[in-house]
Amino acid sequence: MSGVIDVQEIDLDAVREQVDAVLEDFLEDKAGAAARRSHPPEVANTLRAFLAAGGKRVRALLCVVGWHAAGGSEDRAAVLRVAASLELFVAFALIHDDIMDDSAVRRGRPAVHRALCTRLGQSSRAERLGAGGALLVGNLALIWAQELLHTADLPLRRRRTVHALYDAMLEEVMYGQYLDVMGTGPDDDIDAALRIARYKTATATVERPLQLGAAVAGADDTTVNLCTALGLPLGEAFQIRDDLLDVFGSTDGACTPGLGDLREGKRTVLLALGLRAATPAQQRRLRSLVGRADLDEHGAAEVRAILEETGARRRTEHMITSRYEQALRVLDAAALPTAASRALRALAVTATQYTS
Amino acid sequence: MSGVIDVQEIDLDAVREQVDAVLEDFLEDKAGAAARRSHPPEVANTLRAFLAAGGKRVRALLCVVGWHAAGGSEDRAAVLRVAASLELFVAFALIHDDIMDDSAVRRGRPAVHRALCTRLGQSSRAERLGAGGALLVGNLALIWAQELLHTADLPLRRRRTVHALYDAMLEEVMYGQYLDVMGTGPDDDIDAALRIARYKTATATVERPLQLGAAVAGADDTTVNLCTALGLPLGEAFQIRDDLLDVFGSTDGACTPGLGDLREGKRTVLLALGLRAATPAQQRRLRSLVGRADLDEHGAAEVRAILEETGARRRTEHMITSRYEQALRVLDAAALPTAASRALRALAVTATQYTS
Repeated sequence: MSGVIDVQEIDLDAVREQVDAVLEDFLEDKAGAAARRSHPPEVANTLRAFLAAGGKRVRALLCVVGWHAAGGSEDRAAVLRVAASLELFVAFALIHDDIMDDSAVRRGRPAVHRALCTRLGQSSRAERLGAGGALLVGNLALIWAQELLHTADLPLRRRRTVHALYDAMLEEVMYGQYLDVMGTGPDDDIDAALRIARYKTATATVERPLQLGAAVAGADDTTVNLCTALGLPLGEAFQIRDDLLDVFGSTDGACTPGLGDLREGKRTVLLALGLRAATPAQQRRLRSLVGRADLDEHGAAEVRAILEETGARRRTEHMITSRYEQALRVLDAAALPTAASRALRALAVTATQYTS
Repeated sequence: MSGVIDVQEIDLDAVREQVDAVLEDFLEDKAGAAARRSHPPEVANTLRAFLAAGGKRVRALLCVVGWHAAGGSEDRAAVLRVAASLELFVAFALIHDDIMDDSAVRRGRPAVHRALCTRLGQSSRAERLGAGGALLVGNLALIWAQELLHTADLPLRRRRTVHALYDAMLEEVMYGQYLDVMGTGPDDDIDAALRIARYKTATATVERPLQLGAAVAGADDTTVNLCTALGLPLGEAFQIRDDLLDVFGSTDGACTPGLGDLREGKRTVLLALGLRAATPAQQRRLRSLVGRADLDEHGAAEVRAILEETGARRRTEHMITSRYEQALRVLDAAALPTAASRALRALAVTATQYTS
């Protein structure tokens, strides 16, 4: 609880530790309760390991900063609980995402469904059963995220606002993923790609966490609107950059280029820009390569070359920068407490220079 | 609202219609809101169709009857909302269950993941993407079940009790399914099979719905304990009968015998009893046939014959009857309002003579 309130700096490292302590206590209790009742404690322990393996806790930090921005000073335990809930929600979304994409690796370790599959051994059904086990671990992450939320000690009106915001966020993310999964594959419709990015990730990454923190502090409309004005550009930049990193990796080498989105044929802004600027011959190559489950490094290199030649990569980077700058302009114009404003500038960098 | 309170009979058909009206209004609102916001309204509509295709609403009815049993008279809107939430929770559990088991049919129609797979057409990824879409539809059913729950208008103390009971139920079901999926396949451990049945289905089918309704009415400890005394035997009977129907079908032909549990190698009481009473030769046959993904009707007929010969089928039927009778004894000894007691007797028959 040390020195986070009414100071010029919000100690984001301290906040991260406090959020992690809430998560660890909660999941340790769950593992203990499971063991006492002949339930499998490994579910809670799988989630503890998942959280311990990484994650920047961006959403939790934004939630606490949103609370500061709205003048939060009481209810610190409540905002930490809401912030922790967001991180369990992220775990749920990532574990299910990895099942749907059949991703092998998450945070440098085998994805949960792959780890469970390995544990089941040589059975011919191990793959399906491992996915089933991971689906259930993900479900419990969501169920526990909601438990953390509704056990946060809040006055009735704020509780209602917090629940309404959280429900809206959950719906947006599910709808965005649904459009992603059931969609038609990449085309040159940049607005459609942006819409998917917005629902799947953008609002849940910045806008909703900021609003949730602000709502815990009983924010007025000005602050809630500021969360949106700030959250939308930063959230979009976050997702666009994520798509860029998936294809090109990061310049510092922390994130290596991959084949995931290209093989999936994900509908990203990057690919929409590429298709739009491509010559007919390049369009044919992109359409024949992207979305192939057997795309190899050679094919991926050709796609990357076309995305460079058409200027799609450069334009995508520009879209990130312009959104980052837009967020800074919003911050400049807002009359926020200094500490909250500074923390938001730092988090804006973290969110748009996301490298893992 | 007609004549359900303070009468000698609870009109269960009327309750069912009221619960369905809550569900229909809620999901119609969701579909409308989605359409207005460029979200896919088909998710809410898929759930409406799923609910319209069948289901006896046993859990919703038990919830309302539990409320009557605890002397409920106010908060009728609240208890209907909690009851409706239970049915969305069931939809979530069944949709995910069908993905995990890759079941083709649910309530006489293609399972959700199969229907979405068909819609995606000839793509080589249709199967995985259809499962992904269904996973998300299931997630939204859970998210909306929780929304129905936490928007029920309840005083703080009752709200806390309701949430704690609901959270316990969600955990039990997820843990039960997890044990089912990650388990070792059938053996002769009857207690282990009963434990899986208890967590996967039993508590969530009878005990928790009764307790939730009672909690909405602010039940005292006597009523809560009665819910458990009644709920455990009835819930177990319900699950044991479900396992029996899966293998043998129903005598009235409404439910045809299937291959699902046998191919999956589900750890059921029926199979545990069979393995325990089998000769060494029969044991070898059971172990070689059950759990084979390619088990055919011929092999299934051999399994059924062994389950008959060993007396496992008869003993399983006896376990159902004895649990039903135990529940009736609990009811006889309890001082419940007449209407609630009668309704519980009727629902005890429905739950243990479940035929579809």
